[in-house]
Amino acid sequence: MVIVGGGFAGIHAAGALKDMPVSVTLIDRRNHHLFQPLLYQVALAVLSPADIAQPIRSILSRQKNTEVLMDEVVGIDVTARQLTLGSSARVAYDYLVLATGASHSYFGHEEWLPLAPGLKTVEDALEIRRRVLLAFELAERQMLEHGWHPPLNFVVIGGGPTGVELAGAISDVAQLYMKHDFRHIDPAKSRVLLLDGGPRLLAAYPEDLSTKAEETLKQLGVEVLTKSNVTDVGPGWVEAEGKRFDSAVTLWAAGVQASPLGKLLGAPVDKRGCVIVDDRLNPPGLPEVFVLGDLAHLEENGRQIPGVAQPAMQMGDHVAKIIAADLEGRPRPAFHYFDKGDMATIGRMAAVAKVEWPFKAHMSGLPAWLTWIVVHIFFLIGFRNRIFVFWTWIWTYFTFRRGARLITGDQQLPGWKERTKAGRVEETKSRAAD
Amino acid sequence: MVIVGGGFAGIHAAGALKDMPVSVTLIDRRNHHLFQPLLYQVALAVLSPADIAQPIRSILSRQKNTEVLMDEVVGIDVTARQLTLGSSARVAYDYLVLATGASHSYFGHEEWLPLAPGLKTVEDALEIRRRVLLAFELAERQMLEHGWHPPLNFVVIGGGPTGVELAGAISDVAQLYMKHDFRHIDPAKSRVLLLDGGPRLLAAYPEDLSTKAEETLKQLGVEVLTKSNVTDVGPGWVEAEGKRFDSAVTLWAAGVQASPLGKLLGAPVDKRGCVIVDDRLNPPGLPEVFVLGDLAHLEENGRQIPGVAQPAMQMGDHVAKIIAADLEGRPRPAFHYFDKGDMATIGRMAAVAKVEWPFKAHMSGLPAWLTWIVVHIFFLIGFRNRIFVFWTWIWTYFTFRRGARLITGDQQLPGWKERTKAGRVEETKSRAAD
Repeated sequence: MVIVGGGFAGIHAAGALKDMPVSVTLIDRRNHHLFQPLLYQVALAVLSPADIAQPIRSILSRQKNTEVLMDEVVGIDVTARQLTLGSSARVAYDYLVLATGASHSYFGHEEWLPLAPGLKTVEDALEIRRRVLLAFELAERQMLEHGWHPPLNFVVIGGGPTGVELAGAISDVAQLYMKHDFRHIDPAKSRVLLLDGGPRLLAAYPEDLSTKAEETLKQLGVEVLTKSNVTDVGPGWVEAEGKRFDSAVTLWAAGVQASPLGKLLGAPVDKRGCVIVDDRLNPPGLPEVFVLGDLAHLEENGRQIPGVAQPAMQMGDHVAKIIAADLEGRPRPAFHYFDKGDMATIGRMAAVAKVEWPFKAHMSGLPAWLTWIVVHIFFLIGFRNRIFVFWTWIWTYFTFRRGARLITGDQQLPGWKERTKAGRVEETKSRAAD
Repeated sequence: MVIVGGGFAGIHAAGALKDMPVSVTLIDRRNHHLFQPLLYQVALAVLSPADIAQPIRSILSRQKNTEVLMDEVVGIDVTARQLTLGSSARVAYDYLVLATGASHSYFGHEEWLPLAPGLKTVEDALEIRRRVLLAFELAERQMLEHGWHPPLNFVVIGGGPTGVELAGAISDVAQLYMKHDFRHIDPAKSRVLLLDGGPRLLAAYPEDLSTKAEETLKQLGVEVLTKSNVTDVGPGWVEAEGKRFDSAVTLWAAGVQASPLGKLLGAPVDKRGCVIVDDRLNPPGLPEVFVLGDLAHLEENGRQIPGVAQPAMQMGDHVAKIIAADLEGRPRPAFHYFDKGDMATIGRMAAVAKVEWPFKAHMSGLPAWLTWIVVHIFFLIGFRNRIFVFWTWIWTYFTFRRGARLITGDQQLPGWKERTKAGRVEETKSRAAD
């Protein structure tokens, strides 16, 4: 059988098939599995990419019935049961597991991508890190050389968990971690804006936790603007509800669209491109194809199962149970999502958590944050990563130093030069406008 | 006073000026100080960039008389005592310390750069990591899909310390760290070639250590080819002494040229562009300008002081002594290089060391390697880095797992596709040729 995608769903499916009489090929275009829930900490200079990524090959190296292939799937022929790879080779399958996840959606404004990067890959995280750190450097440089700098605003678009975590973490960096580093600017005076089109942050969470999150962010100095649909993004600015906001760095955490592989199946998809599957994880009429994780659209009790790590892992495990049933000639068991809850951190010492298991509770503040730490360390793949991330957190927490404050790559920011040339006048204008 | 360059020399100069009545501006185009002696371990997937890099700003954050500016110096006016920056601003100086180091020289063949990257920056290291890891992945992919792959040769050009360390480390990766990871190729069967134009490796070391290094490399399976001047480099091959060697990944460790800032001074430079300075570290006729580290050409007892970390640090410290003398109206003290020795690692458990202090000795094998570890941990800047690098080494050593095996960026290798299309015939030809 062939598994496409080495995320939570794919890795769990492969792992669950370990001792079964099947031969598994896992195909991914990247060489590493990424622990995405901590990717924002790579972006905000706490962790290094290697702390939360592991070669798929080495995760599965001891699993004799499994091989790993680094290649891209560009075509699926469900009739011939064959995949076409980027290298134009073909791979046949008896069972196919599709778990290629999702990426950002700019709602048809792909031109916003270079202006407002999102957070899905290691490269994304390093690009965000580069932009955020560079903004402070450029402001200091300009202050020294011209006695003035464009407003140091960080605008995060999208108030889901990623947006909330990014906004809180940027605020931490500016308020706490750069205190003694600059001579001409005061990083603590930079502004962090979090824009969301909806009426509240964390729309998928209970209302009391949304309120808590908003309160906590405001205590951190983040300006939360709900009901603020972004209508345009330019170099150095963001427009929402007719207002133009200055922005040194704009980050995108608003939309998600499924991997294009879903459409290649030819099965029905929802408006984000997710493949609609039944409770055996099959698209209609394709019992040999399983679609898992963020790429799957599955409803249970009228509610769509969210695109987060937990259901992805469970779906991965469940595929192995279905294959076992097939091998033994039993009917296939149905998938049920066992929801243990959801959580999002907000800066240095707070989080919100909706706990469903082992007890039901809404948590916030420090207790939620401590729970978050335990859960995330526990689920990190690889003993080394667990140890190193844990020590890095302790280190960062007590020393107020972020270990990964490296600016690599290009040394410019979109829009910065133009705004510098335009000078003070434009600043006054744009300040007045927002 | 203005220091340009945040390497060993610049950071030490700034640090030594800490409590003196001067105001210091350190300018660097990068935001971080890099512990270059360990950069090859970033390239070969042991360490993460953040483990050996620190923001210059945070190294100097508590030093009240010092500010850090991230910008590029593009012009030096020694008459007006003024620097022009990349942002076109000007910065005046009374004292100027130039310590911008060196980069690769391709001996006039700049077209070889994309085909054979060198190792000077974090980006270089990640590019080398990408290429080395990708070569194994592409070979596995091709073996699976076509039953054949181009020869998995790694060619390192240049037998100085960097070349020796890279060759040894690649051999380690192939022989030890990927044992169970592939199903179709045997990484241990890849070849590592180390080419040098001179008669022996490590030309700056005593002959017995060169011999030791060569023997150790051969034990690791590295093919050492001395007296092999490289005459041409192409995508997928290297030509030396009329022979063409297949090469999946070619690395450049051969030539060094000084940073272009040396020439901007208008003072005499040697053939590599290093500024010729006297024993007060001044170019002729410019007593207010100091040139340090790899950028300086300084001879002592008829021998040029080598472009390594130790003299750079000592020169940095010495500048502070000269400034102190100036402030007190004393004559300037002369600089003398206190040579404690030199060392280079060769793979997992060996090194060569020429020890000059506290006793004189030539060391090799395990004792040299253990000494190397102690010295390098000791000189790492930042307590965090010391702890984390130390633990990473222990981890890597005992588990045979490299924690940073991430392929990021472009997913192709120069020349690989062409060689794949050409197929078996070309392989037989080129095998016969070498």
